Amino acid sequence: MSANFEVSNSIYNFSLSETDGDASQIDLLGGKGANLAEMSKLGINVPPGFTITTEVCNYFMKNKALPDNLEDQIGKAVKKLENLTGRIFNGSENLLLLSVRSGGRISMPGMMDSILNIGLNDFNVGILAKEFNDERFALDSYRRLIQMYSNVVLGLEHERFEAVIKNKKRMDGVISDAEFNIEQLKWIINAYKNIIERFSKVPFPQDPNEQLLGAIKAVFNSWLNKRAISYRKINNIPDTWGTGATVQTMVYGNLNDFSGTGVAFTRNPSNGNKELYGEYLMNAQGEDVVAGIRTPLPISKTELNKGKSLEELFPESYKQIKEISSKLENHFKEVQDIEFTIQNKEVFLLQTRKAKRTAQASVKIAVDMVEENIVSKNQALIMVDANSITDLLHPQFEDEQNKTIFAKALNASPGAAVGEIVFDAYTAEKEANKGRKVILVREETSPEDINGMYSSIGILTTKGGMTSHAAVVARGMGKPCIVGAENLIINYENKTISNGTTTLNHGDLISLDGSLGEVYLGELKTQPPIPSDEFNQIMKWSDEVRRLNVRANAETVNDTKKALEFNAEGIGLCRTEHMFFEGERIIPMREMIMAENVQGRKRALAKLINFQIKDFENLFEILEDKPITIRLLDPPMHEFLPKSDVEITSLANAIGILPSYINEILLKLSESNPMLGHRGVRLGLTYPEIYKMQVEAICHAIFNISKKKNTITSPEIMIPLIMNAKELQKMKTILIETIQNLEKELEFNFTYSIGTMIELPSAALNSVEIAKHVDFFSFGTNDLTQTTLGLSRDDASKFLNDYVENGVFNIDPFVSIDIESVGKLVDLSSKNGKESNPKLKVGVCGEHAGEANSIIFLNSLNIDYISCSPFRIPTARLASAQAEILNQNS
Amino acid sequence: MSANFEVSNSIYNFSLSETDGDASQIDLLGGKGANLAEMSKLGINVPPGFTITTEVCNYFMKNKALPDNLEDQIGKAVKKLENLTGRIFNGSENLLLLSVRSGGRISMPGMMDSILNIGLNDFNVGILAKEFNDERFALDSYRRLIQMYSNVVLGLEHERFEAVIKNKKRMDGVISDAEFNIEQLKWIINAYKNIIERFSKVPFPQDPNEQLLGAIKAVFNSWLNKRAISYRKINNIPDTWGTGATVQTMVYGNLNDFSGTGVAFTRNPSNGNKELYGEYLMNAQGEDVVAGIRTPLPISKTELNKGKSLEELFPESYKQIKEISSKLENHFKEVQDIEFTIQNKEVFLLQTRKAKRTAQASVKIAVDMVEENIVSKNQALIMVDANSITDLLHPQFEDEQNKTIFAKALNASPGAAVGEIVFDAYTAEKEANKGRKVILVREETSPEDINGMYSSIGILTTKGGMTSHAAVVARGMGKPCIVGAENLIINYENKTISNGTTTLNHGDLISLDGSLGEVYLGELKTQPPIPSDEFNQIMKWSDEVRRLNVRANAETVNDTKKALEFNAEGIGLCRTEHMFFEGERIIPMREMIMAENVQGRKRALAKLINFQIKDFENLFEILEDKPITIRLLDPPMHEFLPKSDVEITSLANAIGILPSYINEILLKLSESNPMLGHRGVRLGLTYPEIYKMQVEAICHAIFNISKKKNTITSPEIMIPLIMNAKELQKMKTILIETIQNLEKELEFNFTYSIGTMIELPSAALNSVEIAKHVDFFSFGTNDLTQTTLGLSRDDASKFLNDYVENGVFNIDPFVSIDIESVGKLVDLSSKNGKESNPKLKVGVCGEHAGEANSIIFLNSLNIDYISCSPFRIPTARLASAQAEILNQNS
Repeated sequence: MSANFEVSNSIYNFSLSETDGDASQIDLLGGKGANLAEMSKLGINVPPGFTITTEVCNYFMKNKALPDNLEDQIGKAVKKLENLTGRIFNGSENLLLLSVRSGGRISMPGMMDSILNIGLNDFNVGILAKEFNDERFALDSYRRLIQMYSNVVLGLEHERFEAVIKNKKRMDGVISDAEFNIEQLKWIINAYKNIIERFSKVPFPQDPNEQLLGAIKAVFNSWLNKRAISYRKINNIPDTWGTGATVQTMVYGNLNDFSGTGVAFTRNPSNGNKELYGEYLMNAQGEDVVAGIRTPLPISKTELNKGKSLEELFPESYKQIKEISSKLENHFKEVQDIEFTIQNKEVFLLQTRKAKRTAQASVKIAVDMVEENIVSKNQALIMVDANSITDLLHPQFEDEQNKTIFAKALNASPGAAVGEIVFDAYTAEKEANKGRKVILVREETSPEDINGMYSSIGILTTKGGMTSHAAVVARGMGKPCIVGAENLIINYENKTISNGTTTLNHGDLISLDGSLGEVYLGELKTQPPIPSDEFNQIMKWSDEVRRLNVRANAETVNDTKKALEFNAEGIGLCRTEHMFFEGERIIPMREMIMAENVQGRKRALAKLINFQIKDFENLFEILEDKPITIRLLDPPMHEFLPKSDVEITSLANAIGILPSYINEILLKLSESNPMLGHRGVRLGLTYPEIYKMQVEAICHAIFNISKKKNTITSPEIMIPLIMNAKELQKMKTILIETIQNLEKELEFNFTYSIGTMIELPSAALNSVEIAKHVDFFSFGTNDLTQTTLGLSRDDASKFLNDYVENGVFNIDPFVSIDIESVGKLVDLSSKNGKESNPKLKVGVCGEHAGEANSIIFLNSLNIDYISCSPFRIPTARLASAQAEILNQNS
Repeated sequence: MSANFEVSNSIYNFSLSETDGDASQIDLLGGKGANLAEMSKLGINVPPGFTITTEVCNYFMKNKALPDNLEDQIGKAVKKLENLTGRIFNGSENLLLLSVRSGGRISMPGMMDSILNIGLNDFNVGILAKEFNDERFALDSYRRLIQMYSNVVLGLEHERFEAVIKNKKRMDGVISDAEFNIEQLKWIINAYKNIIERFSKVPFPQDPNEQLLGAIKAVFNSWLNKRAISYRKINNIPDTWGTGATVQTMVYGNLNDFSGTGVAFTRNPSNGNKELYGEYLMNAQGEDVVAGIRTPLPISKTELNKGKSLEELFPESYKQIKEISSKLENHFKEVQDIEFTIQNKEVFLLQTRKAKRTAQASVKIAVDMVEENIVSKNQALIMVDANSITDLLHPQFEDEQNKTIFAKALNASPGAAVGEIVFDAYTAEKEANKGRKVILVREETSPEDINGMYSSIGILTTKGGMTSHAAVVARGMGKPCIVGAENLIINYENKTISNGTTTLNHGDLISLDGSLGEVYLGELKTQPPIPSDEFNQIMKWSDEVRRLNVRANAETVNDTKKALEFNAEGIGLCRTEHMFFEGERIIPMREMIMAENVQGRKRALAKLINFQIKDFENLFEILEDKPITIRLLDPPMHEFLPKSDVEITSLANAIGILPSYINEILLKLSESNPMLGHRGVRLGLTYPEIYKMQVEAICHAIFNISKKKNTITSPEIMIPLIMNAKELQKMKTILIETIQNLEKELEFNFTYSIGTMIELPSAALNSVEIAKHVDFFSFGTNDLTQTTLGLSRDDASKFLNDYVENGVFNIDPFVSIDIESVGKLVDLSSKNGKESNPKLKVGVCGEHAGEANSIIFLNSLNIDYISCSPFRIPTARLASAQAEILNQNS
């Protein structure tokens, strides 16, 4: 096998004069190697070196040995470095020392970081000392080499060596590593060598070539260590990617007080300000900055650190870094995260990569870079993480503060909230009216709790999933909410909640981070949302580019107003059942459900219709001429009924029947699998009077608004949970008859369209027929995911996390659409639907319509609009723009 | 529009000398008209006539009038009849009278039956009397015409005319209609005419042509009457089919005592014996036989009716009918259901059609007809209704007895059972041990009840659906079972069950018809099943023809033996969870579920494994070299736990824990939608020790049997509820590791295959990838139906009946596969699977695999076998043979 390996293509040199690779070869050279090559080509001051390819790593994994000829090739590459630098590896003067570092396509915990100062030994350490006229520096470098080599190549524990240093400090009263004198360093080096001989049975290798090969093998071995393997499993990184190994000429940050090392972002990754943001340490090498033994100093001048910044103390070096940063940004068209070494005021770059940043920074940087003519508008849009920009819309906790986690559960609705614990909705309302900020803590919430939920600033439940009542309502309200905190136990009687170790009482303060799903003890500091000018600019640019219309899922006046603030182009999903949950309405709703016959139901519906008319009038008035898709009643009846004995008794008194009768109805309506039960159009066909009432309410609202404002609303009426075309036709006939009757009665012509949710696999598979009878499809990808995957969202929490960690799913399929199953159905169904009925309008109204990856997929299909919760609208606008840009580029 | 209608093609004549149509033109002429034409061509004695096509009916529906020229054409056709018969319509001698009858493609309630004696009026009734020298006959004929015409054409209520007859009988002391004398008939005719003038404001039409046209229009109008329309809706008959109208020369069954009318089957439709089976009435016309005013007599000689049969009294006519029957059977190759009239000993045929029959008759007739060289074996197989032959395997109630229905609910498992009511499993077992026949009556059954269920001869529950514990277990046991009798209320304390009006006590006798879902009061007579020689013959022929293999769903020794008796070719679905329900096993099973950690689970599993090994040994021993597909644990954990307080306390005592702890576990395990919850492979991945134990048990059983019998079983191990390929791979890896470890331990090489259930839309859509990693697919169409349609089988009873009646589904999708949704997925998935892995074996193991229509569909796909419950195996064998024959013919 060895014979087949083309070892001649295994080494890529880089230097200012001759560079083989570039940034595009990340697969072959790893991120680090590819970018070092690219920087060299740009003429940036990078110490020359060479990268051994990831293919060699793969060879090494298979054969447990390096390719036959590689050693020779490495020798030749080192020779080249010797020629370039005029130094000699293991020479008798002008000593060439090398570093070896790993670098895969992406950086990965568990991978070897670096071994520095390779090439030093007992004999030539003196040559180094002589050259720089600094024995302490030479010994410190040698000490570092031995320590790193022992740990990384020989596998000895880091702690053994740290213990030597610690002991020596204690013995001699030395505080900082940098203070060790020559004798002390010699003593340490000896102690190190003794440890090596004792624990690895071989002495520290004195042959520089052996050191170099050992370090290279260690890089490849680190690809196979346990932590790296499990990280790859979790993140679905193929083992076959492999890592590159980069060998580079040493420069010395530990040479003197005009030397140093540091890391920097070319812009502030937290707020996006255009400033070098990072830390440095003078007279230091490699890990010293991160190790925390000495406190690093800021690179740029700040209020807090006056007189300590690189900018002030070493303005010459600072200027070099500034120039390099600007060059890098202009070249990579992205903010960079760099590593540098200063040797005698001269700045060398050791690494550059794209910088991670907050949502806030991301937006500001994108806009700034357009203004600075570094990127185009489209490039700027792609730079922003569409999912994370919702973070900008909710209050957030400040980063820098002590946090004690009380519980971690499902992040049902984002944002930060700090408030006092209350255990029931009534108390929540009462306390809120007194001006207190409260967090409602319940096992689960129910329709009765609505007012209490409105009054609370956050909601925490110990049961339920991402579509539980609490989660759905909280998202609708834009309130932080955490659900399914199963390890918390509530004692309603004593008014306590406990996680087993800590017990909290009514009135205790907690802080909810709805974005992370974390509950903290006590009061954390928050910061309010500021939709910045840059945010608005990004939104504006997005709107110029995107193809998809973006609508909102909303049914209340508040949500609708919020949606329009975010520039929603209409309502794509108005869930009428939410209108029946509120205080006054729930009573006739329940009367309706408990009626013994159609007459009883009609009596109760006659009470409900006025609420419903008013609701629609309010929405139509706000929306003006924007479209609205109204979904007729969807959930099963039992969702509207009370569950606890207290609530049942109270309801019985309210409508004058026996509690036992309510219990009988509850039993009769209870279902084994409500998700697959008597709901949606199935209710509409069993009790046509309900849908008739709803359609009449819609018509009356149109009529009333037309008289008042002289505008005519043309609603899109949507039938939920359709299985096939016949079911749809039956329901549609009833609706149209109802409207026609009202047209006669009111002497008015309504304009409207009728469509259906596609939320069952069966409907998707029957799209050709269904499309013939409707004006629009709206994909309800929440339910479609549940049925297609046979996965109950409320029950999946028991194993879904494991499934994502184990790679059964790349992402939670309720968060991002499962393209191979649900995605296939949406694709097939929208295609078939539009072929069958070219006028068919197609949208998606599941929560996936507010998630960036899903939107990129959905944009590739033949659909017209997406509809999501108000707070996800900015994400939807940006992500559909990104999808369109990616589409144009591809 | 009238101008475009080709009226020249609207009339089809039939007579012994000239016939336009034939039996194939059923769409155009209706069943009656087409078969009259066919019989005429065969030379059978049919009174000549003509049929007006269904196209005219459609014209009439659109235009509310007959086509312009039709009247002329009818006149010409009547003229032809006059020429043929030498009689004159409205003539002054040799009077031609006509009948008009409706006839669509299928016979339909609500359609007009017939109007006889058309052409008579006040003036020519005397001519008829003179010709036959019988004034009474002529007046009786006229009286009948007026009565039928008034009802059918003029729309007057039948009761008004019956009242006249009744009054006259009472006034004059007359008993039978046939006894009215001339004066009395004249009085009746006058009374009839008065009624007509009073209620329809026009006199009875004296013009024979007006009578004829009125009758024809009445036929077409009857296509549009309410009852016919709603029947068409229910049965999905398109309105566009229309009905034909047949006009035919009258022959007179009421002419004299050598005349009569009757209906007959060419073979006994109840048991299939080769004998004319029917009734006749002498001196009677039309409806007299059915009307029940006089008791009709048997056609063939029987023990009970000696001296009254047509065979004895009118052997000449009997012989003519015999000869015609034989001719018809030979021609149509089917048993016929005929209508005839005898006029002066001469037999005329008025109708023939395929006869309905019982399953028993159907089987016997099919085999007999092959022996008589009337049909081929393949034709014989097609003649038998595959679904109904299971009726032959269960005890049945005799038809002729008084039945008082106590309740009607879901027919969960077929068969008849008579026994004493017991209200708990323990008592059932106790009483059964005393030799009593008991029926277990429970709200629901649970695993504890298994022994009691075994001891009972039938099971009745007031809750649960077709997949409830009771239903599944009972079908497995082949015991009659009715579930979900929601209107029954059980009082366990008093040991009573009531339907609101009748209350039954412990020990009272009831009779269950599991095929109909009916519970009767008291003891009904049953007949035992007799798998006749003919039944065995049909099965044998089926096996010669069919392509699909047929296996059984079975896991107990009893079921497996039963399956092999029915010639199952192996087990296609062994549901291992059923093995954990029985008495001894349920305790460690529950211990396992309630264990706090993996160690606790392993301890409990160590107890279970021995039961499981023994179970598999028993099955492998019976099956010998036949294949077995073993499905690993599928249901959610909570299905194994007790529900009631009593059971919980008893379990707590049994395993020494607190009831409160069990309740905690129950709460923790409870799911919103268990169907979509933590079950199947999801459990297997969360608790791999469970599936490992099962696979180890399989291996140990193979090993043990190989030592004992020197045969090696190669089981098919099946992973349930797979969503995608990655999930499958993860589970498969664990299983294979387990087997490999055992191979080392036992020094034995196992041969086995690993496959998966395809029971989620997601799996079907991911078949290309999944197939790469498995040896077989088995479609679980029960769950696939639930998820594809979003329809919980346990909850659907609330609306599914309506859905079938309203035509949303043609058949209950849990009974017959929904081809447009589930069928599409099975098709797609099996195609993709076999393309991706050509060695892939594909089967279907849902209940559809035992239903004839579904099997016809499944046979058209690229699948290898079907697997159904033992008692459905004959259906599966026959239906797959039929599918193959239909396939060859098409």
